[in-house]
Amino acid sequence: MRLPVDEDRLRADIEANAEFGAITYDDPEKHGRTNRTGSDANRKARDRLVDRMEAAGLDVTVDAVGNVTGTWVADAADPNAAPVASGSHLDSVPEGGIFDGPLGVYAALESVRAIRDADVEPRRPITVVCFTEEEGSTYGDGLVGSTAAVGERSVEETLALSDDEGETLGEALSRIGYRGEGRIDPAGWDAFYELHVEQDTALESRDADVGVVTTITGITHCEATILGEANHAGATSMADRTDALAAASELVLAVERAATEIVESASSTAVGTVGSVSVTPNATNVVPGRVDAGIDVRDVDGESIETILGTVRDCLDRLERERGVDTELERSLDVAPTPMADRLREAAHAAAADAGRTVIDIHSGAAHDAMRVARETDAALLFAPSRGGISHNPLEWTDWEDCATATEVLAGALARSSSII
Amino acid sequence: MRLPVDEDRLRADIEANAEFGAITYDDPEKHGRTNRTGSDANRKARDRLVDRMEAAGLDVTVDAVGNVTGTWVADAADPNAAPVASGSHLDSVPEGGIFDGPLGVYAALESVRAIRDADVEPRRPITVVCFTEEEGSTYGDGLVGSTAAVGERSVEETLALSDDEGETLGEALSRIGYRGEGRIDPAGWDAFYELHVEQDTALESRDADVGVVTTITGITHCEATILGEANHAGATSMADRTDALAAASELVLAVERAATEIVESASSTAVGTVGSVSVTPNATNVVPGRVDAGIDVRDVDGESIETILGTVRDCLDRLERERGVDTELERSLDVAPTPMADRLREAAHAAAADAGRTVIDIHSGAAHDAMRVARETDAALLFAPSRGGISHNPLEWTDWEDCATATEVLAGALARSSSII
Repeated sequence: MRLPVDEDRLRADIEANAEFGAITYDDPEKHGRTNRTGSDANRKARDRLVDRMEAAGLDVTVDAVGNVTGTWVADAADPNAAPVASGSHLDSVPEGGIFDGPLGVYAALESVRAIRDADVEPRRPITVVCFTEEEGSTYGDGLVGSTAAVGERSVEETLALSDDEGETLGEALSRIGYRGEGRIDPAGWDAFYELHVEQDTALESRDADVGVVTTITGITHCEATILGEANHAGATSMADRTDALAAASELVLAVERAATEIVESASSTAVGTVGSVSVTPNATNVVPGRVDAGIDVRDVDGESIETILGTVRDCLDRLERERGVDTELERSLDVAPTPMADRLREAAHAAAADAGRTVIDIHSGAAHDAMRVARETDAALLFAPSRGGISHNPLEWTDWEDCATATEVLAGALARSSSII
Repeated sequence: MRLPVDEDRLRADIEANAEFGAITYDDPEKHGRTNRTGSDANRKARDRLVDRMEAAGLDVTVDAVGNVTGTWVADAADPNAAPVASGSHLDSVPEGGIFDGPLGVYAALESVRAIRDADVEPRRPITVVCFTEEEGSTYGDGLVGSTAAVGERSVEETLALSDDEGETLGEALSRIGYRGEGRIDPAGWDAFYELHVEQDTALESRDADVGVVTTITGITHCEATILGEANHAGATSMADRTDALAAASELVLAVERAATEIVESASSTAVGTVGSVSVTPNATNVVPGRVDAGIDVRDVDGESIETILGTVRDCLDRLERERGVDTELERSLDVAPTPMADRLREAAHAAAADAGRTVIDIHSGAAHDAMRVARETDAALLFAPSRGGISHNPLEWTDWEDCATATEVLAGALARSSSII
């Protein structure tokens, strides 16, 4: 059976959402938005989602950390049965793309509408979910709403996370009207499906419609601090300087080299990145005195993460000896690789077969809310193709037809899972 | 003859000035201030200077770009004779030291007071000068007030320089009450002396009281832009990324290596620094898409500057070929090496001999306002010792006795130059 996913309706939802925090570019290929948690754009995106959920007859709740759910109980459904949930997030990185997050939220909503339009009568409630602050661009280190939902961080601690200006998440949510009560509890869900853009090129290069994720990569974040000596760039001879940025540059290249070596020798899915660097005092005519660098290391194999981090520690030790800098390394995020649930992967494969769509098994190099939810219930992660694999960038793009195709598979999987009680 | 420089009076001036924009540290060795042009701290520093000049009987003027002068015409002096001028600046880099600039301004004022107290009767007027925005931390690229004074940048263009928030220098000066009229004209000065802290360790290591600069280093500033592709740090495999920060890290190390090689092979005074780096989007979980890097290259030998810049260009070409980034290099500041005037250097040596102080000839690796003034009149640059050579840093320090000793030599040189007509 093919479910009647309405591509135009889905597109209208994603395009309307893309207006909130939209950035205008001369290049027509670029479609960017900055949707930070607690911003005006974020409030508008949430308001519109609530409107669309209510228009579709869903019962909306907002929890204490701003996670939004909308639940549909079909006439034939048992309102007390554990629901099948699906969703993603609406926040973005600065100048992020328009599909990363919103596709998963609005595809879940479109799936509910398609299931209802097809007169399928699920026996379980279906819940559409929007998690708060998946990206961690403003509060915390990513997956903030789902981490609170599964109880890995208490609601109290979550609300106390603060942004660069010192405003807490709790204050920001109150300000935009999204500090609700209680917390949504994935342990009470029968299953959770998340549809997301792939953000890599496996689907594109293998001409597949949908990816079904086998394992979500493990991820470690570290903050490295390198302390040299700020000094006058003209008056300080080359021999007399302790340049924190030159030292940090060696670290950046060491992370890149270590990850590349692992890819070539042990695990093709390993990645290592220094994504952020803050230089103090950061003036052209001053030898840098301090650098803070944010390091991201991932793999489906936990051992390769440790190997790369070992290289980082060795590099910092060597910089202390050879360059006279002081260094610190703080491990701020640590998530083990997360396998997805077999029974949901099978449902997704079956739904793709029903719809005549090509599907491949794939790993996820990105963390997603499904990774947190998997702690408490069976979770699945589906991928739609990403043009050129570009993501966290206004050039991110997924054709509308591909969005609809992937949504059709999601809807089929949700229909299958919600029909079994 | 020794002039009666009052160490306590000089110290009181510099300590009072250090309060404006003062930063508090737990470490008692640290004495930092952030005195940005147009800030409240900057207004207060200027107000106090004007008060102190007027208290010493100087006739104060403020020009269109905020340069402040105070002129003393001794009873025996010809008011129409070209004055002998001396001064420096009051602005600082972020968290800069308390002597860099203020020593030169208040030593000049103290010299006038000492000359008058000694009943020396100069035949030329003596002008104390405070130039606007020497550091270039807020407007332009350094030496802003002296560049306008010598006509190298028009007053109009200078006033149109804007800060990161878009406020122009003209607006900032109006706001703090220091947008005067006309421009001070160093071409009308008989001579200009600037006393500054050395910011290196030559005086300290050779146990000398004062340095007399032979040549101020040439200086080139460049802005390098490296464009890669911002992408998801987890989902983008090592082979698929174009990481602008990894490329920039190679550039930072290439600049350091090129300058070190020149020091070892050709010119011991060469320095090359990447002092500032701005990463976009600068999030731990995003492969960096763009880096803007500020490069500072200096030497007393113009040829070694070109050699280092050649290495920078070669490195950027290689990064384009090997890493697929796009690069740009803009040369934003270019000043040839500037020799100081022999007759003023001789006067300084003679004054040091009079006062029984040890003096060495030295080069200046830092640009100073004297470099600009030297375009229009004879200029000299004197150095006081810097503890450990630390500068542009709250650990910058010059003992009060050393400040007074150097001021005594400055006063003697001013007395000598102003007595000849």
